[in-house]
Amino acid sequence: MSEVLKIFKIGGGIIDDLAQLSEFLTELARVPGPKVLVHGGGKGASQMLQDLGIEPRMVQGRRITDAATLDIVTMFYAGKTNKQVVALLQQRGVNALGLSGADGNVIRAAKRPVKDIDYGFVGDLDARSVNAALLVQLLGAGLTPVLCAITHDGQGQLLNTNADTIASSVAVALAHSYEVELHFCFEKNGVLTDVNDDSSVIPRITPGLYQELKASGAIAAGMVPKLDNAFAALEAGVEKVVIENALRINDPVKTVLCRS
Amino acid sequence: MSEVLKIFKIGGGIIDDLAQLSEFLTELARVPGPKVLVHGGGKGASQMLQDLGIEPRMVQGRRITDAATLDIVTMFYAGKTNKQVVALLQQRGVNALGLSGADGNVIRAAKRPVKDIDYGFVGDLDARSVNAALLVQLLGAGLTPVLCAITHDGQGQLLNTNADTIASSVAVALAHSYEVELHFCFEKNGVLTDVNDDSSVIPRITPGLYQELKASGAIAAGMVPKLDNAFAALEAGVEKVVIENALRINDPVKTVLCRS
Repeated sequence: MSEVLKIFKIGGGIIDDLAQLSEFLTELARVPGPKVLVHGGGKGASQMLQDLGIEPRMVQGRRITDAATLDIVTMFYAGKTNKQVVALLQQRGVNALGLSGADGNVIRAAKRPVKDIDYGFVGDLDARSVNAALLVQLLGAGLTPVLCAITHDGQGQLLNTNADTIASSVAVALAHSYEVELHFCFEKNGVLTDVNDDSSVIPRITPGLYQELKASGAIAAGMVPKLDNAFAALEAGVEKVVIENALRINDPVKTVLCRS
Repeated sequence: MSEVLKIFKIGGGIIDDLAQLSEFLTELARVPGPKVLVHGGGKGASQMLQDLGIEPRMVQGRRITDAATLDIVTMFYAGKTNKQVVALLQQRGVNALGLSGADGNVIRAAKRPVKDIDYGFVGDLDARSVNAALLVQLLGAGLTPVLCAITHDGQGQLLNTNADTIASSVAVALAHSYEVELHFCFEKNGVLTDVNDDSSVIPRITPGLYQELKASGAIAAGMVPKLDNAFAALEAGVEKVVIENALRINDPVKTVLCRS
């Protein structure tokens, strides 16, 4: 049986709050064994775009990434956030190493084709996007890769890429080398039957139960794409997907999604 | 005899001009064998500080790095510039991997002590600052480390650090494992006897000749700290220091500094 690798994904909510981010990283440092951290952006990039008089353009909840926006998100995600996270992990004794997808060609994406909407410099991943060999090598050297949501196309172009997608793709790519657990960390304790009651955590969801919960409308609409994505990762070889509170990753309360 | 490693340092002038930066990186991709690139900042950070209404504070030609300035320089150096350079090298077939000093704890610095001037979040290096083992490991894996001028103190604090100093310290630290050539690339063809005549390159400078040139005032005052630093690197084990035009690194015209 291969070694367990835990991949954690954190999003904007926790990145925007330095006290919470520090608390999460302290908990992360307590997690034994090899691990990978994937982080999204935060409100900082939007705020800076606004401060510079560049109005963020959103279509259907997605940011349109023009050249000026790409510059700013690259600076925030790959610069400020990634290096702050790495420095705080080093402080906590974790030998973290920050990466964009361009670094070591670790994630190569394709610019999203223009159909109805031109999303600009946004990257989509496929089954061959992740350079698993490099990640295995870094993990083997005792390093903790910290991936930001910036990738490249191999042709010199950086691309803004969804962090959930990066986390899932990395998890699937590493499932050949490790027994992978993919942890989506957010502000709730897990998947809840009552979104206003943090004690209503569903401890375990199988594909069958997920279909029932979706059909009955018991799962909040916003969670459905995340869970669809999670079950797809399980189908593709990931051992376990965990949905949990970023500040309680070492507590037993969480939702575990599994293949059966 | 150990393998030759070439360490290149580029500064602001070339980073500020995308066409020149691209041309330099094309030349760099033609350099055979293991290599490391160290880059400074550029005017972008100062411009953004100004656009955001944060006035850059300079004392004796050095930027005072307060918390807001550190944020912006980290975003520029470790984010925008570093990732752009890495993506352009990947495009040119060089498997580049960008690093701040925090990444893999590759360069640990000490915040400069406050004496007459409080330089703020500025890091100084000593003989134990560079994690040579990690660089050797990355080079051995066929990667080209691209270092920006941001380090950390191991206590969670990022620090702004002089890129020439980083290049020299990395060169000295790697001199135990490689025969190191340290290349300082700038807009002139080398050390000139007449600063206005680019054909007046001094091809070879020994410590003896350097003392003569300094005494006679034949070397521009601005070059003296750079050359003092270069000869110190030679004393500390670096095989050769080269001063050359960033756009002509594969041409024979250049100044070579050597121990004898």
